[in-house]
Amino acid sequence: MNTISTLNINSIPASQKFKQLNNYFLTLQQDISALVQQEEATRTIIEDSWQSKLGQGQTNILTDGTCFESAGIGFSSVQGQALPAAALNANAEKPSGPFFATGVSVVIHPKNPYVPTTHFNVRYFESTDKDNNTVFWFGGGFDLTPYYGFDEDCRHWHQQAKAACDPFGAHLYPTFKQQCDDYFYLKHRNETRGIGGLFFDAFNTLGFDQSMAFIKNVSKHFMLAYQPIVQKRNLMPYSEKEINFQRYRRGRYVEFNLLYDRGTQFGLQFGGRTESILMSMPPKVNFCYNYYPPKGSAEEKLYTDYLVPKNWV
Amino acid sequence: MNTISTLNINSIPASQKFKQLNNYFLTLQQDISALVQQEEATRTIIEDSWQSKLGQGQTNILTDGTCFESAGIGFSSVQGQALPAAALNANAEKPSGPFFATGVSVVIHPKNPYVPTTHFNVRYFESTDKDNNTVFWFGGGFDLTPYYGFDEDCRHWHQQAKAACDPFGAHLYPTFKQQCDDYFYLKHRNETRGIGGLFFDAFNTLGFDQSMAFIKNVSKHFMLAYQPIVQKRNLMPYSEKEINFQRYRRGRYVEFNLLYDRGTQFGLQFGGRTESILMSMPPKVNFCYNYYPPKGSAEEKLYTDYLVPKNWV
Repeated sequence: MNTISTLNINSIPASQKFKQLNNYFLTLQQDISALVQQEEATRTIIEDSWQSKLGQGQTNILTDGTCFESAGIGFSSVQGQALPAAALNANAEKPSGPFFATGVSVVIHPKNPYVPTTHFNVRYFESTDKDNNTVFWFGGGFDLTPYYGFDEDCRHWHQQAKAACDPFGAHLYPTFKQQCDDYFYLKHRNETRGIGGLFFDAFNTLGFDQSMAFIKNVSKHFMLAYQPIVQKRNLMPYSEKEINFQRYRRGRYVEFNLLYDRGTQFGLQFGGRTESILMSMPPKVNFCYNYYPPKGSAEEKLYTDYLVPKNWV
Repeated sequence: MNTISTLNINSIPASQKFKQLNNYFLTLQQDISALVQQEEATRTIIEDSWQSKLGQGQTNILTDGTCFESAGIGFSSVQGQALPAAALNANAEKPSGPFFATGVSVVIHPKNPYVPTTHFNVRYFESTDKDNNTVFWFGGGFDLTPYYGFDEDCRHWHQQAKAACDPFGAHLYPTFKQQCDDYFYLKHRNETRGIGGLFFDAFNTLGFDQSMAFIKNVSKHFMLAYQPIVQKRNLMPYSEKEINFQRYRRGRYVEFNLLYDRGTQFGLQFGGRTESILMSMPPKVNFCYNYYPPKGSAEEKLYTDYLVPKNWV
């Protein structure tokens, strides 16, 4: 895996802090890509770098693998004149000046229906307030979307999420866990997207250095959280029944991303690069009218035992 | 095909006009369903009627057929205290009182990639203005989404659209054709959803009786427009290549419906019946990072010759 040679990422007229984040996120993209590649025997990640008037980025993408049906690891660093509506939640005060945003987004759709889909994101925003003072904040988190639930995986996942937070304050994990359950929720289905994890936004209360250390710890624990689950579940045998259920449930992922996800809406409102934004879409999806899993089935158990907010640690 | 025996559609405390529309739309649902069934040899339409606090309806649905991979013909008749934001376009003045809405929606996803997907909708709204006067309007239209374009089909489609409008005024077809091109447009792709047709909203300038006659003529010409295309293209041989392209392009249908469609957003905002609203989703969909059709291919021709607004008559 090479660094982005065609990108001149630090030509953006942002602060030293922003450049520091750019560099960290580029390294993080490589680290996560290397970990994905480690699990995938038959396909190689393709590195697709891009530039536009708004900024630059690189989408690392793996498709049609033995372990991963698709895996996207995206880096982008953009700037704009005014923050789009979807960039912050409705209650947050919007900075008035031009803004800079840099971040890494990961969405992995495994082939084996027993391996859960995952999403990870870390981002940094910088802008100016009405008195022209620089303001910054971090956002991000990670969450897990199983097709078949395993209690031990859920506990492991949330233990890693908690371990990512605890060195920075005991209140962080419960707060960000709750925010994750609230955010990844399909109102029209009364279902959570998955078993949650962490979600935080407009985060700067620890100051820059500690926030940056927190982001690094979240990133590290994402990798520690996901890889063992992939390794454990990828060997489980499955049949067409599980594939059909996986493809049906992927429809919910599509519904969430296009109806609710602020990252997707931010990207598309902002005129971002469509292919990089929609790399999150599952590769093969089935939609089906009025499907309900049979009573007492493993498929029903997903709804009753996993797609509801729970305390896993 | 039977009428809805379990629904007591005219128990809603709306006007006689509303009841007249309810009855017409129920008959129309049966007529379109009969036409769909006529083309489908191996599967039978299932009639699924429902009731909720908001109203009642019936979803006629055919899945996994030889001709149609899915076909949904939905009727719903609902009422509410205040019109949701997505019910009218942003420029229209919103009535302040409770409202009644009744309509028929059709989305057909054929199996053969040479047969285009189609969407049809007719709807009637009734409410009261700030002086407590009854206001009403109609909306609707039909549009065609081919995977492989045929000029003669596009001409036939738009000739039927024009014939639906012309008896009611020469300006209607060009206006509603333009509105259709504008509405079924994916901004983030700079593509139209298909080759268009008719789209109209907040329509009441002809008065009630003539508007109703117009709605009936639109409905009749939708059936005249679509059935011959199905019959002609359904016999064309196809291979996995065309299936793959169809499933890829169906992703655009998903993007449009969830990101832009006001009917979908109206339904979900309003707390409507999710399964009936999302019956529009294509049954099998593939998403793929950064796909572009090969230069000079039939697939490229779709983009260059058909997914751009054109005068077809």
